[in-house]
Amino acid sequence: MATHTVKPAPAAASDSRLTLGELRAALQAVGEERYHHKHPFHLLMHDGKLTRGQLQAWALNRYYYQSIIPIKDAIILSRSTDREFRRAWRKRIVDHDGDATSEGGILRWLKLAEATGLDPSRVERGEGILPATRYAVNEYLNIVRSRSLLEAVASSLTELFSTKLITLRVEKLRQHYPWLSNGLDYFKARMTQAPEDSGFAIQYVFDHASNREEQELVIKALRDKCDILWAQLDALYYSYVQPGTPPPGAFHIEGS
Amino acid sequence: MATHTVKPAPAAASDSRLTLGELRAALQAVGEERYHHKHPFHLLMHDGKLTRGQLQAWALNRYYYQSIIPIKDAIILSRSTDREFRRAWRKRIVDHDGDATSEGGILRWLKLAEATGLDPSRVERGEGILPATRYAVNEYLNIVRSRSLLEAVASSLTELFSTKLITLRVEKLRQHYPWLSNGLDYFKARMTQAPEDSGFAIQYVFDHASNREEQELVIKALRDKCDILWAQLDALYYSYVQPGTPPPGAFHIEGS
Repeated sequence: MATHTVKPAPAAASDSRLTLGELRAALQAVGEERYHHKHPFHLLMHDGKLTRGQLQAWALNRYYYQSIIPIKDAIILSRSTDREFRRAWRKRIVDHDGDATSEGGILRWLKLAEATGLDPSRVERGEGILPATRYAVNEYLNIVRSRSLLEAVASSLTELFSTKLITLRVEKLRQHYPWLSNGLDYFKARMTQAPEDSGFAIQYVFDHASNREEQELVIKALRDKCDILWAQLDALYYSYVQPGTPPPGAFHIEGS
Repeated sequence: MATHTVKPAPAAASDSRLTLGELRAALQAVGEERYHHKHPFHLLMHDGKLTRGQLQAWALNRYYYQSIIPIKDAIILSRSTDREFRRAWRKRIVDHDGDATSEGGILRWLKLAEATGLDPSRVERGEGILPATRYAVNEYLNIVRSRSLLEAVASSLTELFSTKLITLRVEKLRQHYPWLSNGLDYFKARMTQAPEDSGFAIQYVFDHASNREEQELVIKALRDKCDILWAQLDALYYSYVQPGTPPPGAFHIEGS
């Protein structure tokens, strides 16, 4: 059984362990370089240059990512022997699967997909999702299963960057695609959830990476997670923007 | 990724698939034969014949079982792609880890251990737990990881039998060991939690075992789980009742 033990940070200033501020800056630098806010697909989206069909392809493919998030978080939860950690992390599963008072992020994403004009039950069945989307997303599951718990937690840290992107996106979607406006509940919820989650996770990785080597693994996990998000947009871009040849069995855009 | 798909029961009466009533009877028969209510250690407990030290050994070792339950349930949760299933199963993690309004089963068990006279922080660190306890309990994690989701769910079905045992136990603990009386919150909570959980799980295994062969796997998973509970008491009995030779490093009873 994978275990999780509290390793207090060594007090010695002699090693090259980063301070919390330095670690945060290193993580921010990863985001600046590799987070998907700069991906051409997002730039087109925010410039109002995507068609309804391209937004459908995005909503459909991204649904696969959304649908595995509680599974990813349950794997992380299952790897910790610390009850307090599990209680804190459980929030993420509730945020996505919902509870008696909240529909949860997955249903909110289905509403977004429906607002693009897709049949939500088709989206839920996953029909037409690009294989490259699945491979990239499944790699996220591989990471949280096979790396240390520290790295699994660190892989969530793209939430450090998501609020800024989502704030911009909601503004741009409302401006350029007003017919999507009643499907934006997912993003509104994430604006408060993501900062809470990243605040917990960054403190966790700082407290549990006991030397510079482990801190570098944290940084690498974030970089790899950024790549997973970027690759999902690559798959969309190559199939639906240019040159526009989705593979056999994948969603095809109808005249738009 | 392990997946979970809804397989409706075949309507054909021609195969030997058990009805819900027959399946329930088969599961009850497993409990009658193998559930740990008949274990000599429990019989001694209920007859008031255990010493305080023996009850300490029980509370300490059983804590290891309690402590992995949310991990076990998070593994099961991580194996399902069905949001509704995950929402229902998540309750079990809350029941054990607690939330803002409830301390949860693990802390309640620590209170029971404390009522036996053990230092709860020592219990939480797991000092002196028998290796045989760990092996038996870890096999529970192996089962929910490596068998089908159907069998993982079925392995929880000892909850079908626990309410009756707990009702008797609370009565007998109060009668024979009155100094334990303020440590019994764990059992009181389980009296309502277990029937809810087993009701969900038995309907689930009936709905998802689509033929007799799968139903037999369900029955086997329950049998194997009963064996895991039984083996934990064997370990206690052999080390602390007779002949009383706990292995090196394990908890030793002091004059009681």
